[in-house]
Amino acid sequence: MSSVLVVGSVAYDTVETARSRKDDLLGGSATYFSTAASFFAPVHVVAVVGEDFRDEELQFLRSRQVDFSGLQRQAGQTFRWGGRYSADFLQRETLYTHLNVFEQFKPEIPATLQATPYVFLANIGPELQLNVLSQMQRPRFVAMDTMNFWIARTPVTVRQVLSQVDGLIINDEEARMLTTEPNLIRAMRLIRRLGPRVLVVKKGEHGAILLLDDDFFYLPAYPVENLVDPTGAGDAFAGGFMGYLAQADKIDELTFRNALVFASAVGSLCVEGFGVSRLQAATREEVLQRYHTFQKLTHFELTE
Amino acid sequence: MSSVLVVGSVAYDTVETARSRKDDLLGGSATYFSTAASFFAPVHVVAVVGEDFRDEELQFLRSRQVDFSGLQRQAGQTFRWGGRYSADFLQRETLYTHLNVFEQFKPEIPATLQATPYVFLANIGPELQLNVLSQMQRPRFVAMDTMNFWIARTPVTVRQVLSQVDGLIINDEEARMLTTEPNLIRAMRLIRRLGPRVLVVKKGEHGAILLLDDDFFYLPAYPVENLVDPTGAGDAFAGGFMGYLAQADKIDELTFRNALVFASAVGSLCVEGFGVSRLQAATREEVLQRYHTFQKLTHFELTE
Repeated sequence: MSSVLVVGSVAYDTVETARSRKDDLLGGSATYFSTAASFFAPVHVVAVVGEDFRDEELQFLRSRQVDFSGLQRQAGQTFRWGGRYSADFLQRETLYTHLNVFEQFKPEIPATLQATPYVFLANIGPELQLNVLSQMQRPRFVAMDTMNFWIARTPVTVRQVLSQVDGLIINDEEARMLTTEPNLIRAMRLIRRLGPRVLVVKKGEHGAILLLDDDFFYLPAYPVENLVDPTGAGDAFAGGFMGYLAQADKIDELTFRNALVFASAVGSLCVEGFGVSRLQAATREEVLQRYHTFQKLTHFELTE
Repeated sequence: MSSVLVVGSVAYDTVETARSRKDDLLGGSATYFSTAASFFAPVHVVAVVGEDFRDEELQFLRSRQVDFSGLQRQAGQTFRWGGRYSADFLQRETLYTHLNVFEQFKPEIPATLQATPYVFLANIGPELQLNVLSQMQRPRFVAMDTMNFWIARTPVTVRQVLSQVDGLIINDEEARMLTTEPNLIRAMRLIRRLGPRVLVVKKGEHGAILLLDDDFFYLPAYPVENLVDPTGAGDAFAGGFMGYLAQADKIDELTFRNALVFASAVGSLCVEGFGVSRLQAATREEVLQRYHTFQKLTHFELTE
């Protein structure tokens, strides 16, 4: 087993759904990522919080092999985000984004962590992603996230990061946006040419697609009947993916495929509760059970 | 091997895409269905055409075990439909629908076909679907299609047909509409309670879902990079599904799963050409090759 380092955000989120509203949930990409990855391997978090941050909220993560030696505490307030979902969860309205201490975030990778073999660059500015990469010593596998904001605003820098990573984990809309190609299959092949050997495209309720070199792998979404809060599902998914890679500590096709299945398993758990509550309550057995459910959901073979 | 009977339409279609336009293509649900089903088993078509119909166009189907003894020829013109697709194929505009002889279509099942074991009620009015069922003698497996028009206009009759069939093959939008339940998984479970033991929901580029009793099976869409004309893909899909069932002549879970894979294989071939041209040119080997590609696209397993 190896370990994984994530650079991203720790935040307080307010989430409104048609049925409920929760204030000041522990959130942020690094939080969701590390909660999910901690089912599989030790995780190191590099992020920033403000003076108002309640450190005891990280206790459950510390008890799950998550290391916060890279968590900076700065003067000011912690990143806060508020959002509201439509009744069918297909639309999300951002109510506010207060970057606070995150606005001046300068990721510093502690010397003890610079050789971490598996690295995930969560959705932060591409300049910061490059900066993190320059601090790492020959990681075995680096994957990144990005978003429409950076693709539109800093396309050149996004491509620069892409040329330096092994994997990209994004959603279908972002994949089409990166390439201006409406056919997702063609868009995925085009993205591979920008650098990453491994591309994962998340399609929400429609599952996920992995492209490794020239080979596609498809997985449906886990059939979630009780969707509570989709916030952070993408980061939990990435955490499951990278965490499993670090656990397996192998870079081959079957490992990537299994990583996608475990990513989808933890992503599906994530949305069944507000914030990280469902992931926090879940056991390794539940995660493995979802893996087996995915096997049953997708199995077919010719007989006779 | 058994055989399958389809009751539906034979039509002339005009299709416009961003790149091309084709006039008077041989179309209609029974045409697409029987072309696809003929890869697997003998097919009997019950439909109606007008005086203008060019019978020689059915020659390739006759050579593929498709029997047109149930094709009625009436005074008047054959059903004509025209449609235009957006450049990304996500929108379809109906330019015209001339029902012509189809407007007064009264399906008559020839006595020799009334005991056909596998029956597909394509997208015709639910009254006609009931009428067909009343003419059949204890079929082994009956599946039906329907559409938003009938669900909105004749919901009670649609439910009456549903209570009498074994299978329903529809798209995700129709499944949500039938139940007014936005969560597709829940919608599918609700539909099962209306009668059909087998429910297949087609999601276009996002694949298809089978619900057999309480067990789900998911299959992605075949990665089509060169989409030419989506017309008839749903009927070709149904033809592949029912044709494979008739070929296997078994009603068990693995057979239904394989039927869904073959349905998706022929559906994906269908959209690679205008009208039925691609299905007409395809070989059984190509269909089987797509089955194997689906296996590669979806395979994963835990090692160690």
